[in-house]
Amino acid sequence: MSESLSANPLRRPQQHQEIADYLRDEIFAGRIPVGESLPSEAELCTQFDTSRGPVRQAVSTLRSEGLISSGRGRRSIVLSNIRTESFEEVLSNASRIARMGKEPGQILQWFGLHPAQSEIANALDVKEGTSVVSLRRVRTANGTPIVTEEIFFSPSISSIVLGVDPNSESFHRTLMREGVNFNNIARAASIDLANEDDVSNLGVADGAPILEVQVRAYTHTGAPVEYAVHRYRTEEMSFGLNNVRGHSSPMWVEMAPETIG
Amino acid sequence: MSESLSANPLRRPQQHQEIADYLRDEIFAGRIPVGESLPSEAELCTQFDTSRGPVRQAVSTLRSEGLISSGRGRRSIVLSNIRTESFEEVLSNASRIARMGKEPGQILQWFGLHPAQSEIANALDVKEGTSVVSLRRVRTANGTPIVTEEIFFSPSISSIVLGVDPNSESFHRTLMREGVNFNNIARAASIDLANEDDVSNLGVADGAPILEVQVRAYTHTGAPVEYAVHRYRTEEMSFGLNNVRGHSSPMWVEMAPETIG
Repeated sequence: MSESLSANPLRRPQQHQEIADYLRDEIFAGRIPVGESLPSEAELCTQFDTSRGPVRQAVSTLRSEGLISSGRGRRSIVLSNIRTESFEEVLSNASRIARMGKEPGQILQWFGLHPAQSEIANALDVKEGTSVVSLRRVRTANGTPIVTEEIFFSPSISSIVLGVDPNSESFHRTLMREGVNFNNIARAASIDLANEDDVSNLGVADGAPILEVQVRAYTHTGAPVEYAVHRYRTEEMSFGLNNVRGHSSPMWVEMAPETIG
Repeated sequence: MSESLSANPLRRPQQHQEIADYLRDEIFAGRIPVGESLPSEAELCTQFDTSRGPVRQAVSTLRSEGLISSGRGRRSIVLSNIRTESFEEVLSNASRIARMGKEPGQILQWFGLHPAQSEIANALDVKEGTSVVSLRRVRTANGTPIVTEEIFFSPSISSIVLGVDPNSESFHRTLMREGVNFNNIARAASIDLANEDDVSNLGVADGAPILEVQVRAYTHTGAPVEYAVHRYRTEEMSFGLNNVRGHSSPMWVEMAPETIG
């Protein structure tokens, strides 16, 4: 890997992002209810001491998320207050559990350097057998097991990862604080049946449905930072997506390629 | 519903959308491979006979989809060619099956006017017992059953829907051609176990995992157009999502709210 993974320390969000974050919070908290208009462009310009460019970009972002109407000359109105997830929630089950108002916990099963098998070596773009720092833990919410995480980090950040105390510190927060540039996340999910490990880790019945999510995180230049496999209990789990005409959906679905003739 | 659902006939896509569609096609087809740069702004301006505004908006769209790097003064490079889905694919399993290179088919089980039960009445924002046009069909790919669809349409478009021949015409394509304004789609998914209907419709074992997706489609003013429940076979099915730092994820996940203390 020729380019440093830590070239891009945590940046201050740009102004259009701050305005979009503010409006999203107002909508999710119900302070601008469904059916009501957003503040006018002029009001937002005054409030954020800015020109119309960032305000328009923020409004356009919310529109592409399906939260507000297209406006067309009139003020945009709130269409939905179904929440979206922050980038940190996408990366971290602990953040997601905390957002649900539950106490995140973990049962660490192993943590250390292991030679990368082919699947992991491919995902991290290293030679098979390269030593990579990896861990397995069961994430809990108020003490209940929710998901088993197996995480493999790029060798280029091994020294930072090995310096983390896995029982008291967050890997993702430490890495981001150290300037590791998590920029893109690609997730691929499928539905599997519980195996022996799932039965013992998650307390589900043998053969119960399990949602397996493979997570790949990259820097802004496309260098792999992390590869992870999350196996979730699925009872009472739900997930959802908003889409807007004129915008492609970032989610793709492939159906039964092996079982269809 | 005071506002007509057909106030907004099919619009010509805006120029920034055309440019984004062109670049996306180039990336998915591998004509701009991962690691290569996009054409310059000047080249795109010449090619589309336009100013920099629409070009920049198109590039910003692809960036928010995780397909290209952030650039920062340099040309953006392609990070991923994991495809996204068009709005039509999100709405229609037939489009999705066709995109996979399979022949979509259907087994129609019922089609007609039925009084709306409470779940359906709520979703369509009508009084319980209102007559709504509904149908149930099993969608096939190369003859293999893939998904059972139950679809309920807003009473405001009943006359158009009842004019469709369900054996030879597409409901969604007919409705859009008639100017019905499908603008936002919200999907909520959960994992269920196969019931008797699933066993007989999809040929799965009793208790096999089923992905249930509830689909709600709205106009640009937030009036409901359609409510549907899709139940998918899950063997060999996969789905995925790209996310980029600085952009919230349009997908939300809720975990086990009932089973956690």
